[in-house]
Amino acid sequence: MTLKALLHPASVAIVGASQNPQKIGGMPVRLLAELGYRGTIHLINPAAEEVQGRRAYPSLAALPTTPDLAIIAVPAPAVEAALRQAADKGIGAAIVLSSGFAEVGEAGAAAQQRLADIARGSGMTLLGPNCLGTMNLREQLFATFSPAPLAGRPEPGAVAIVSQSGAFGGYAFSLARAGGLGLSHWITTGNEAATSVADVIDALVDDDDTRVILAYIEGARDGRRLQQALRRARAAGKPVIVTKVGRTDAGARAAMSHTASLSGEDSVYQAVFDDTGAVRATTIEQMFRLGQAFATGTPPRGRRLGIITVSGGVGTLMADAASDAGLALPPLPVAVAAELKRRIPFCSTANPVDVTGQITATYEVMDFAAIEAARCGAYDGLVLFLAAAGGAAGFADKFENTVRLVREAAPGLSLAFSGIVSPDLRRRLQAHGCLVHEEPTHAIEAMAAMERWLAAGADAVAVPSPVPETQSAATAMPPKDLPSGLLNEVAGLAFLASQGIPAAPHRHVRDADAAVEAWRALGGQAVLKIVSPDLLHKSDVGGVRVGLRDEEELREACATIEACVAAKAPQARREGFLVARRLDPRVELMLGARWDPTFGPLVILGLGGVAVELEPRTSVLTAPTTPARVRARLQALGVLRRLGVWRGHAPIDETPIVETVLRFAALAAALGPGLRTMEINPLMVTEDGVAAADAVVELGPPPQDQPSATRQAQSDLP
Amino acid sequence: MTLKALLHPASVAIVGASQNPQKIGGMPVRLLAELGYRGTIHLINPAAEEVQGRRAYPSLAALPTTPDLAIIAVPAPAVEAALRQAADKGIGAAIVLSSGFAEVGEAGAAAQQRLADIARGSGMTLLGPNCLGTMNLREQLFATFSPAPLAGRPEPGAVAIVSQSGAFGGYAFSLARAGGLGLSHWITTGNEAATSVADVIDALVDDDDTRVILAYIEGARDGRRLQQALRRARAAGKPVIVTKVGRTDAGARAAMSHTASLSGEDSVYQAVFDDTGAVRATTIEQMFRLGQAFATGTPPRGRRLGIITVSGGVGTLMADAASDAGLALPPLPVAVAAELKRRIPFCSTANPVDVTGQITATYEVMDFAAIEAARCGAYDGLVLFLAAAGGAAGFADKFENTVRLVREAAPGLSLAFSGIVSPDLRRRLQAHGCLVHEEPTHAIEAMAAMERWLAAGADAVAVPSPVPETQSAATAMPPKDLPSGLLNEVAGLAFLASQGIPAAPHRHVRDADAAVEAWRALGGQAVLKIVSPDLLHKSDVGGVRVGLRDEEELREACATIEACVAAKAPQARREGFLVARRLDPRVELMLGARWDPTFGPLVILGLGGVAVELEPRTSVLTAPTTPARVRARLQALGVLRRLGVWRGHAPIDETPIVETVLRFAALAAALGPGLRTMEINPLMVTEDGVAAADAVVELGPPPQDQPSATRQAQSDLP
Repeated sequence: MTLKALLHPASVAIVGASQNPQKIGGMPVRLLAELGYRGTIHLINPAAEEVQGRRAYPSLAALPTTPDLAIIAVPAPAVEAALRQAADKGIGAAIVLSSGFAEVGEAGAAAQQRLADIARGSGMTLLGPNCLGTMNLREQLFATFSPAPLAGRPEPGAVAIVSQSGAFGGYAFSLARAGGLGLSHWITTGNEAATSVADVIDALVDDDDTRVILAYIEGARDGRRLQQALRRARAAGKPVIVTKVGRTDAGARAAMSHTASLSGEDSVYQAVFDDTGAVRATTIEQMFRLGQAFATGTPPRGRRLGIITVSGGVGTLMADAASDAGLALPPLPVAVAAELKRRIPFCSTANPVDVTGQITATYEVMDFAAIEAARCGAYDGLVLFLAAAGGAAGFADKFENTVRLVREAAPGLSLAFSGIVSPDLRRRLQAHGCLVHEEPTHAIEAMAAMERWLAAGADAVAVPSPVPETQSAATAMPPKDLPSGLLNEVAGLAFLASQGIPAAPHRHVRDADAAVEAWRALGGQAVLKIVSPDLLHKSDVGGVRVGLRDEEELREACATIEACVAAKAPQARREGFLVARRLDPRVELMLGARWDPTFGPLVILGLGGVAVELEPRTSVLTAPTTPARVRARLQALGVLRRLGVWRGHAPIDETPIVETVLRFAALAAALGPGLRTMEINPLMVTEDGVAAADAVVELGPPPQDQPSATRQAQSDLP
Repeated sequence: MTLKALLHPASVAIVGASQNPQKIGGMPVRLLAELGYRGTIHLINPAAEEVQGRRAYPSLAALPTTPDLAIIAVPAPAVEAALRQAADKGIGAAIVLSSGFAEVGEAGAAAQQRLADIARGSGMTLLGPNCLGTMNLREQLFATFSPAPLAGRPEPGAVAIVSQSGAFGGYAFSLARAGGLGLSHWITTGNEAATSVADVIDALVDDDDTRVILAYIEGARDGRRLQQALRRARAAGKPVIVTKVGRTDAGARAAMSHTASLSGEDSVYQAVFDDTGAVRATTIEQMFRLGQAFATGTPPRGRRLGIITVSGGVGTLMADAASDAGLALPPLPVAVAAELKRRIPFCSTANPVDVTGQITATYEVMDFAAIEAARCGAYDGLVLFLAAAGGAAGFADKFENTVRLVREAAPGLSLAFSGIVSPDLRRRLQAHGCLVHEEPTHAIEAMAAMERWLAAGADAVAVPSPVPETQSAATAMPPKDLPSGLLNEVAGLAFLASQGIPAAPHRHVRDADAAVEAWRALGGQAVLKIVSPDLLHKSDVGGVRVGLRDEEELREACATIEACVAAKAPQARREGFLVARRLDPRVELMLGARWDPTFGPLVILGLGGVAVELEPRTSVLTAPTTPARVRARLQALGVLRRLGVWRGHAPIDETPIVETVLRFAALAAALGPGLRTMEINPLMVTEDGVAAADAVVELGPPPQDQPSATRQAQSDLP
C-alpha cells in the first residue's frame, strides 16, 4: 500500500469548500492557498461560483480533470454521496474530515461501513472519517482543518507523525514546531474506516522523505496488520517510536470509555512492539525526544558507553542512568588515562572520566580525552557533559570542533552532547550527527534505546519458521485428524507429546490395582488424579492427591477420589486415574496459548506454581517465535537467574525450555483459529530438562469465514 | 546554626582581590560591584592600593571595621593565615574558594582540618574550601568566582539550591535562569571542612526567604546531622527535593572515584529520605520540575485525582500515569456528568472527562466541568489538559479565568494545567497557585509527589520513642549487664526474647538423650542444630539437620553432627544442641540491625529464606522507627500481599510483625555503637504470630570516644 495519492497529491479537490476560513470546509482552502502548496486546488461547492476568491465547481463530476486527492468536509449525511462521486471520478484518495460516524453509535457505524465499502470497491484510499487530515511539510500540503499551521510550521524534516487521535495530532504538531523537530508527514487516521495507523506506517516505509516514524495508537483493529507494518519498518531500518495508551488498568478503562476501537490487552501490544523492534515511549515528551534522537544520531553497535564530564557528580548521575539502562562503562585505555592524569593531575580517569572545570582554562584536554576515547575502540557510544559551559558564546566553536574531530576519528561511534546549548549550537551539533540533550540522563536513555533498537534488528526481521529447526519432521505439524473439544488430561499430554513437548512420566489406569502397579513402575513417588474431559479444576472437586507413601494409601486415595468426584461433580465422566511421577523442579513455569481475533496466535510464558496467584509474572510472545525472543523473556521473568548457581545448585541449561517454547508457539501458530486453549501449568524444569505436569487442551474447528490456520499465520509474514 | 553572616552579610571582604576579573580573586569583586550588592565591599590585597578602581587594604587586620563575611581567594598555602586573620578580626563567616585541600591528598586533608579547627575555635562559619561560593538572589550578593551571573540571573524567588558540587551548582544556576525558577539562595559546599549540605539545609529552615530547598548530595560524612536537618525542614513544612547520586553499583563506583567524601550505601540514604519526608529526584530535570511544583502549587490532601482533557487519548495516557503514581480516579458526580452530556452529547463523562475539541466552539463547557469538579468534593487534585489550545492568544485569558474560578470554588484543591502555553501565560497561571507542565504526565507526577510529601508529614516529624508503646516496661531497655561478644544461638534467642522478640519453641540440651526428650516435648517436628559461639554458618560444617522422623534418626543425627563439626571446625567450642520446633510459616522474613558510624542505628527488613539468595528484596529503616514506616516497607516488599487471602489461606494480621520490628529497631537504637550485629533469619510468620527461628547477636563495648549509645541515639532527635 503506497498511499501515494494521499501523501504526495499533485492536485487536491475540497468538497464542501466554504467561504468562511474558520469552518471545517473553509480552513483547508485557506491553508492550501496561503501556505505555498504548489499543486492544483479545486473547490467544490454547489451553492457558490467562487469561494475565497477562487472558482468553485458544483460537483466533483463537473471538474475538468481528475484530482489525486479529495478532501471531504460536508456534513455526515452528505459524505456518502460525495465519496461515491470521488470513486466514480477515479480519484486516488479521499480524506473525510466530517464527524458523525462510528463515534456516535450504530447508525453512524453502519454509514461508516458503507464508506469503507465504496473505497474498497473502487480501489480508492480512504482516510477517516472523523479525522483531522494530513500535512506534507515538504510540499506545503495542509489537508486539515486545524488552524495550527497558521501560527507557524515545523521545519521540513525526516520524521513522520501518524496519530489515531486528532487532538493528539494537533498537540504533537505544536510540540514539533516548538521543539524544532523536522517533519516529513503528519497524518491523523480518526475512525479508521479503511486506513489505519498500521497502513500509514506501512506506506511510510516506502516514503523516501521519511526516516523515522512517530506513531500514536489508541487501539488496533487488525493487530496482525500492525505487526506486519512494524516488521517491515524495522526491516527497512526505519525506527518506529510508538505511544500506545492504556498501559494500566485505569488507562485501559479510560481508553474503552472514549474510543470506538477495540483496545486490546496491553501486554499483547507490548509483545508486538518487542517482537517487531518497535520502540515504545510512555510519555509524549519521551516520544519526541526519542524521535529526535533517531533522526539525528548513530545507533551504538554495542553496550559499551564512555562518559566524559566536567562534573564528577553529574558523571555519577549518568553512571546510575547507564546502569539502569543496561549499558556498561569500560575503563579508558591505560595509556590514555596516564596522559590525561599528566595533563590534569586531579582529574578522574575512570569511566566516567572527569576532566573537571579545568577545561575553562585548558579546553584542549577535552579534545584529547574525547578523541582518544573515540579512537581507542573501547566504546560504542560516547557522551560528553559540558554543564553550563555550552551557554557561553566563546565555547560554541570549541564544542562544535570537538564533535567534528570525534566524528572524524570514529565515524561509526554514537555521540551525544549534554549541557546547556543555544538553539544555534544545538542545530550545529545535530548537523554532525550528535545527539543533544540538556538533561544528561536523557542522552543515556536515547543511546540505550537506539542500541536496543539496533540489536533487536536481526531478530525482529527474522521470519520465525512455523516449524522450528529443533523439531523433528515427524512431529512438525498437527496431525491431520486433530482431536476436538476439551481433551482429558491424558489426551492433552499425549497431543503435546506428539508435538515434541515432553510430559512427566505417567500412566493412565482404570482402577486401584492398575494404579498400584503404575505407582511401583514410576518409582513410588507419584501424584494421583482423576481423568475426565469435563473437569478443568480437578483439585476443586477432590480429584487430586499427593504425598502418597505406600500402596495402602494409594488404594485408599483412589477410593476417596472416586467418591469425592462422584459427590461433587456427578455429571463429570470419570475415565480412570492418571498416576504421574512427582518431579522436584528447580523452577515451575506456565505456558499458555490462545488465538486472538485481532493479533492471531499468542503465547503466554510465566512463572508457574504459587507465583501465578501470589505475584503473577508473565510475558506474551507473538507466535511463532525465535530463540532470542524466548531467551529475552526468560531473562526478564527472572527464570535465567533461577536456573543459575544458588544454594549449591548446579546451573541448569535453558535450552530445553527455549526449544519447548518454540515448539509450543509453532504449534499455536499452526493450529490457528482452531486453537481454543492450550495451557501447561506447571511446566517443570529440572536438571534433566522440562516436563509438562498438567495440560489443558481445547481445540475446535476454525470459524468458517477465516482462511485455514496455517495459511493465515504464514500470510502475516513479510 | 543560622549561618546568618554567610547567607545575609551586610558587608563582605575579599581576601586576594585581584585586578583581573577573570581570576578567582577578581571575579567576586566584579560581581559584587556590578550586579547591585548594596552592602559594603572591602578588598584585601597586600600588593596593591587599588583593585578594579576600589581602595584595597593590605590585610583583614588593617580594615577599619569588621565585615560580616570574608571571601578567601588566595592560593592554598596562604589560606590558613588568611582564615586566622579573619578569626582574629571576629568575622562571622568565611568562604574559602581556593582548592588544593582534601581533594589533593593527605597533606591537603591535614591543612583542611586546620582550617576547620580555626573556624571551630572562633565560632566562625566556614564554607569550603574548594567550593564555588554562594549567591543571595534577593540581595544581589554574588560571593562566587563563577562568571555565570554575568550572563543573566534567575528571578529572586523562594527556592534555595544547595550543592556539594560546584560544577553541578553552576549548571543548576543556568538551568534555573533558563527555566524561570525563582531563587532565594545558591550555595555550594565543596569539601565541607566545617559546613555541610545538611548544615545549610538546617539554616535554610530558619530563612524566611526560602520555602523550598533543592539539595544535591554526593555523600554525607554525618548522616545523623543530615537526618536531623531533613526532619527539621519537614517539620517546618519546607519541602527538600534531593538528588543523591550513586544509586546503582556503577554510580557508587563512579562517586567513590571522584569525591573525597564517604559515599554511604544508597539504600541507607533512601531510608533517610523516606523516613524524614524528603523528596528524592533521580534526574536534574526532575529535581527542577518538582522544585517549581512545590514552590508554585498546593499539595493535594489525598489521592483522588480528577482529569479534564480535550483529548481522550491523552486522558488515557494521564490515567496510566496516575495509576503508576498510586492515584485514584473517582467518577464525576452523576448530576454533573448528566449536565455535561446534555451540553456535549459525544463527550466522555467518566474520569478522565473528555470535553473534546468542542471547547474551541463553546469554551464555557470547560469552565462548567472544571468548576463543578472542583466544587463537588470528590477530588483532592484536578488536572486540566488543553493540548495546543494554550498557544493560541485568544485562549490565554479564558484559561486564566478558568483557573481563577476553580481556585475560588475550592481554595484547598491542588490544580495543574497541561498543554502548550506561552511564558507569559505560564507565569499568570502559576501566580494563581496552578502547576503548569507541558508534558501531561509531569503534572500527574508532580501532584503525586506533593501528595506523598504531605501525607508523610505527620509520620516524618514524629519522634519515634526508643521504647515503643507495645513493649512492656520490664523489657524496655537492654539489661545493665549486657552479654558481650558473639553469642551462641541459644543466648542470642534468649537475649532477643528478653526484649520481647519471641523465638520458635526450643530447648538447649547437652546430649542425645536430652535431645530425644526435648523432641518429644516439642511435638515431634523439630530442627536439630549444634550450639557454638564460634560458628556463624552452622550448616556449612554439617551442624544442622531437619526432617528427623523418629528417635532413632534423632540420635543418629546428634552423633553425625558432633562428628562433622569436630572434623570440619575442630577449634569451635561445642556447647550441646538446640532442638527447635519446626514451624510452617506463611512468610519468612529477615531482620537485621547494625550501627553505622555515619547514620547511627539502622534496621534491614527483607524477605527471608530462599529469597535472600535468589532475588533479594530488602529495605532499610532508620532506628527507632514508627508503625507507619514499618507498614510502608511491608507493603513495598510484598509482605502484606503474602499475608492476604490466596490459595484458600486465611489472612494474617501484620500487627505482630510491626511490633516485632518496632522492638527490634528500638533495641538497636538503645544498644547504640555497642551493637555489632543482630540478625534474625528467618523470622517465621505464621497464623499464630511471629517467631525467630535463628539469631546471630554480637555485642561489644561502645568505642571509647563515643558518647553512650542511648544518649547518642536520643541526641539525634529534634
